Amino acid sequence: MEDSVVAGQYIVVKAKKDGVKVIGMTRGRDTKFHHTEKLNKGEVMICQFTKDTSAIKINGSSTIITEYGTVESDDE
Amino acid sequence: MEDSVVAGQYIVVKAKKDGVKVIGMTRGRDTKFHHTEKLNKGEVMICQFTKDTSAIKINGSSTIITEYGTVESDDE
Amino acid sequence: MEDSVVAGQYIVVKAKKDGVKVIGMTRGRDTKFHHTEKLNKGEVMICQFTKDTSAIKINGSSTIITEYGTVESDDE
Amino acid sequence: MEDSVVAGQYIVVKAKKDGVKVIGMTRGRDTKFHHTEKLNKGEVMICQFTKDTSAIKINGSSTIITEYGTVESDDE
Amino acid sequence: MEDSVVAGQYIVVKAKKDGVKVIGMTRGRDTKFHHTEKLNKGEVMICQFTKDTSAIKINGSSTIITEYGTVESDDE
Amino acid sequence: MEDSVVAGQYIVVKAKKDGVKVIGMTRGRDTKFHHTEKLNKGEVMICQFTKDTSAIKINGSSTIITEYGTVESDDE
Amino acid sequence: MEDSVVAGQYIVVKAKKDGVKVIGMTRGRDTKFHHTEKLNKGEVMICQFTKDTSAIKINGSSTIITEYGTVESDDE
Amino acid sequence: MEDSVVAGQYIVVKAKKDGVKVIGMTRGRDTKFHHTEKLNKGEVMICQFTKDTSAIKINGSSTIITEYGTVESDDE
Amino acid sequence: MEDSVVAGQYIVVKAKKDGVKVIGMTRGRDTKFHHTEKLNKGEVMICQFTKDTSAIKINGSSTIITEYGTVESDDE
Amino acid sequence: MEDSVVAGQYIVVKAKKDGVKVIGMTRGRDTKFHHTEKLNKGEVMICQFTKDTSAIKINGSSTIITEYGTVESDDE
Amino acid sequence: MEDSVVAGQYIVVKAKKDGVKVIGMTRGRDTKFHHTEKLNKGEVMICQFTKDTSAIKINGSSTIITEYGTVESDDE
Amino acid sequence: MEDSVVAGQYIVVKAKKDGVKVIGMTRGRDTKFHHTEKLNKGEVMICQFTKDTSAIKINGSSTIITEYGTVESDDE
Repeated sequence: MEDSVVAGQYIVVKAKKDGVKVIGMTRGRDTKFHHTEKLNKGEVMICQFTKDTSAIKINGSSTIITEYGTVESDDE
Repeated sequence: MEDSVVAGQYIVVKAKKDGVKVIGMTRGRDTKFHHTEKLNKGEVMICQFTKDTSAIKINGSSTIITEYGTVESDDE
Repeated sequence: MEDSVVAGQYIVVKAKKDGVKVIGMTRGRDTKFHHTEKLNKGEVMICQFTKDTSAIKINGSSTIITEYGTVESDDE
Repeated sequence: MEDSVVAGQYIVVKAKKDGVKVIGMTRGRDTKFHHTEKLNKGEVMICQFTKDTSAIKINGSSTIITEYGTVESDDE
Repeated sequence: MEDSVVAGQYIVVKAKKDGVKVIGMTRGRDTKFHHTEKLNKGEVMICQFTKDTSAIKINGSSTIITEYGTVESDDE
Repeated sequence: MEDSVVAGQYIVVKAKKDGVKVIGMTRGRDTKFHHTEKLNKGEVMICQFTKDTSAIKINGSSTIITEYGTVESDDE
Repeated sequence: MEDSVVAGQYIVVKAKKDGVKVIGMTRGRDTKFHHTEKLNKGEVMICQFTKDTSAIKINGSSTIITEYGTVESDDE
Repeated sequence: MEDSVVAGQYIVVKAKKDGVKVIGMTRGRDTKFHHTEKLNKGEVMICQFTKDTSAIKINGSSTIITEYGTVESDDE
Repeated sequence: MEDSVVAGQYIVVKAKKDGVKVIGMTRGRDTKFHHTEKLNKGEVMICQFTKDTSAIKINGSSTIITEYGTVESDDE
Repeated sequence: MEDSVVAGQYIVVKAKKDGVKVIGMTRGRDTKFHHTEKLNKGEVMICQFTKDTSAIKINGSSTIITEYGTVESDDE
Repeated sequence: MEDSVVAGQYIVVKAKKDGVKVIGMTRGRDTKFHHTEKLNKGEVMICQFTKDTSAIKINGSSTIITEYGTVESDDE
Repeated sequence: MEDSVVAGQYIVVKAKKDGVKVIGMTRGRDTKFHHTEKLNKGEVMICQFTKDTSAIKINGSSTIITEYGTVESDDE
């Protein structure tokens, strides 16, 4: 793997309640879940897009900081 | 796959109601649906354009954040 | 296909009425329609220029966001 | 064709009356018309310069958005 | 021809009267006219510098938009 | 390893209480914890994304400074 | 000739009186006139530096727009 | 080692009390301490990320200046 | 000669009196005059640094526009 | 050594009292002192990071100007 | 010599009195004077750093414009 | 030597009193003085970092202009 990957884009997710799911979805024709990371209230996760991840889905109540602005995810 | 892909452009979609569909459309002469991700109310999805996806269609009530500004999709 | 294509330019189209047509036109000497995507009221489509698409025509009532500003397409 | 072409410059044309003509002119010593696209009132066309097109002529009443500003074309 | 040419510089010319001439002049030691495009009142032409064109002469009454500002050409 | 990696992105974490965990998660399909660094109150850690780390999870009360803004992680 | 030349710098000259001369001077140790273009009042010429032209001399009354600002040439 | 490394990112640490520790942590799967530099009150250290260092931990009372802002480390 | 030379830096000289001299000086250990261009009052010359010219001397009364600002040369 | 190194980052140190030490520390796993330059009151030193220096330590009373701001080092 | 040299940095010197000396100093371990250009009052010289010149010394009363600001040299 | 070196960083030193010393220090493990240039009151020296010079020390009363700001060196 080339190291320039290290400069990839990332997002910041802060869980506002327990049980926030940050779900990495596979790159390519088959878009499947390949990893689900659970965050408890107050935890922060910073994650890059990678060779394996081209989409990220967030479920639960969190604050999400991206290059283009901040958005809140909510519980249903 | 080259890793520079990791720095590709992305959009942010937040579902305002249940059943928002984020539909990846294939790159190339044949523009077909290759993946449909359903979002429930409050969920957020961040997705890149990829080697396989050159268009994204959003159906249902959502807020969409792009490099060029924010737009609301609505229910019909 | 090289992955740097992923960083290509895109436009955002939001249909203001049913039946908006987003028409991809072929790159090269022969400029033909190669794909027509229909949008219903409230739907949003984000589409890149690609190896196959060098022009996009929009028919029907929509809001179009581009790098150079926003423009409204209207019904005839 | 290399994919970096995808990031080429584009202009946005919105027809203000029926019968606007967006005319692609050939690159090279022979500058001929190679394609004419007709737009009806309210239609929008977004077109890139390509390997085949180094000049674009617009005839009829339209609003044209470019990187350097906006200009109105008029009927004669 | 390499496709990066597609990102070349361009100017925008809007004819304010009939008979505006946009004249492409050849690149190289011999600077000759290689193409003259006539514009009628209200027509707009957007043209790039190319492998063949290193100078453009405009004759007649027009508005010319360039990267460095806007200038009016006048009838004699 | 190429030295250009040295210019990779980094985040800054300041522990506000004892026992903050900065957890490096592995790049690739298997997203596992590969290192956990514990910070005591007042300590600061500055960490880059690397060939091995594509996600960082922070647990405990801290201030996190990123390219896109600052966020506080909290105890549960 | 490589096409990247197309992105070369240019200046804009508008003749304020008849008989403005835009004189291309040769690149290299021998700096000679290789082309003189005459402009009549109101005509505009846009010219790039090229492989053959490293200096441009303007004689007569004109407005000259460059990347670094605008300057008026005058009759003697 | 390639010299472009010389342009790597750096941080600035100013000790506010004796005994500040600036700890370089190894790049790669094994994240270990490879160097600890002790600063006395008033001393300043400017350190780059390197091929060997992908994380820096600061213990003790100091002011830390980074590309993304300034942060104070404190004694426990 | 590579065409990228075309994008070289240039200065703009406007003669305020007759007999302004724009003197190109040779690049290299021997710094000699290789060309002197005389400008009459009101004439403008735009000249690039080239493979042969690394210094330009201006004698006589003129206005000189450079990337870093404007300066007046005076008669002795 | 490649000359692009010449564009490396630098810092500026001004001694406010006699005996300021600017200490270059070696790049690589072994982080040792490789050079100590003493400055007297009022002297200024401008130093780059190099292939050999990845950290600089300053001891004594000085003003230090960096890309990210200015900091004062103090005597103990 | 590669032509990209043409885009090298330059300074602008305007003599405020007769006898200003602009002295090019050799690049490399031996830093010697290799050229001295004398300017009379009112003359302007624009000079690049080159393969042969890495330092320029100015003696006499002049105004010097650089990328980082303007400075006056004075007679002793 | 590659010519891109010509675009290296430089500093500007203006002597405020006689006998200012601008001292070039060698690049590499051995950091020695390789050249000392003396400036008299009012003289200005503009010097680049080079393949041979990675640090510059200034002794005596002068004004020093750098990319990151201006600093005064003083006599002891």
